[in-house]
Amino acid sequence: MKGVQKIGLFDSGLGGLTVLSALNKVLPGVPKVYYGDTLHLPYGDKSDRAIQGYSIKIVQFLKDQGCDLIVIACNSASASAGKELESRFPELTFINVIDPVVDYLAQLGINRVGLLGTRATVRSEAYSLKLAQKNSEVALYALATPLLVPLIEDGFLGTGIDSDVLAHYLNDSTLDGIQALVPGCTHYPLLKKTATAILKEVLWIDAPNIVAEEVAKHWNSNEIAEDTFYLSDRTDNFLTMAKKTFQIDAYWELVRL
Amino acid sequence: MKGVQKIGLFDSGLGGLTVLSALNKVLPGVPKVYYGDTLHLPYGDKSDRAIQGYSIKIVQFLKDQGCDLIVIACNSASASAGKELESRFPELTFINVIDPVVDYLAQLGINRVGLLGTRATVRSEAYSLKLAQKNSEVALYALATPLLVPLIEDGFLGTGIDSDVLAHYLNDSTLDGIQALVPGCTHYPLLKKTATAILKEVLWIDAPNIVAEEVAKHWNSNEIAEDTFYLSDRTDNFLTMAKKTFQIDAYWELVRL
Repeated sequence: MKGVQKIGLFDSGLGGLTVLSALNKVLPGVPKVYYGDTLHLPYGDKSDRAIQGYSIKIVQFLKDQGCDLIVIACNSASASAGKELESRFPELTFINVIDPVVDYLAQLGINRVGLLGTRATVRSEAYSLKLAQKNSEVALYALATPLLVPLIEDGFLGTGIDSDVLAHYLNDSTLDGIQALVPGCTHYPLLKKTATAILKEVLWIDAPNIVAEEVAKHWNSNEIAEDTFYLSDRTDNFLTMAKKTFQIDAYWELVRL
Repeated sequence: MKGVQKIGLFDSGLGGLTVLSALNKVLPGVPKVYYGDTLHLPYGDKSDRAIQGYSIKIVQFLKDQGCDLIVIACNSASASAGKELESRFPELTFINVIDPVVDYLAQLGINRVGLLGTRATVRSEAYSLKLAQKNSEVALYALATPLLVPLIEDGFLGTGIDSDVLAHYLNDSTLDGIQALVPGCTHYPLLKKTATAILKEVLWIDAPNIVAEEVAKHWNSNEIAEDTFYLSDRTDNFLTMAKKTFQIDAYWELVRL
């Protein structure tokens, strides 16, 4: 295992902050650099080629900032660009947000798992292909739920509209009979309360903590520092949401890549 | 008036097709070039600087295709980049989607008008500033409704969720007492049926037709040709929606600018 000095995380916007929050509990004080590609948000509706292009530029930037472990804190980027990044940057350690969750599901002892994801994530079949390799007994039922990211970004949490939209998706027959549900987008953990109120019998998979535990396995330094934050486009809405939802009142430096 | 030979239109995605559809009724057979900047969709949540950068590249592209009249078929781009485009390309004629509607409102004889728009459009205050110059008796009440574009793009029209979300917005006290409502985003005309069912007493302003009538005033050529279509990112969802909602089953050429 390489000696990790600094952790880089990126996402198209706010979603990766669920992973950062989980990481801050497991590894407080560890220096982390977060890049939110708000200029190109949302990734989930874009083509693989577009997502790969953005991800490569961001990883190069995080590497230039001294990061040696990169958390791809976005399911769409993990699914569409994960392999490409690993082959382009063999000197870096990558943790994507899919593999640790797949490992967790493979040993959970249940056989019908539902997945909510963006179009890009569902199209990639990344979860089901990886899960089939680990435990072919577990069947995955994936549903694209593209309205959930704008719903969260636009502040509809707790308005009642969020539960209406979520119920609309969760009633889809694709998810009939599932025993557990994976929030397959780093925004979706914010919907846990609403979703579990609707699907009372279904186990909600705590993806950000599972990913954070995986990152912690790679950490073996004593360095302590403040987190740093970058954005590709600065809007009032993003800054408000980061503060309100994640209590992050940091300075976000604007960096176009 | 310049002799217009070819009309260029652009939007971040599908929305501008409401203007294209209106234009096809008023000027059928007239050669039009449509550019959908799907790679950077949605514009409405981005900064002015970002929207200006994209718009300048697109107008240069449309000019290179021989377009001499440009319809800025996007309210966010009209509000954030309209002036910048006019000063950069003095050789072109620009029709934005705000000015013709403001002219229409100024002579309508009512004094309380509501506006639904993206964050960028509402932040710009473009409608209210322009309206104040034309007729200071008309008060404009603008509400940012950022969830409506993803709602339409994601196929929620007619699901019941669309009317729930729209009712949530239309109940906002900002709109109390309005006599007319402007769909201040080129996607929103698709919500006409749902919105007018909720606000029965309110006049719905038919923005795409008002813009199309303005474009028609500039047309003075006999040239007839097929429309051509370009995209900056090709996704199945976009092609499906263009076909389903606008009956446009054309070839969309991928052009990154």
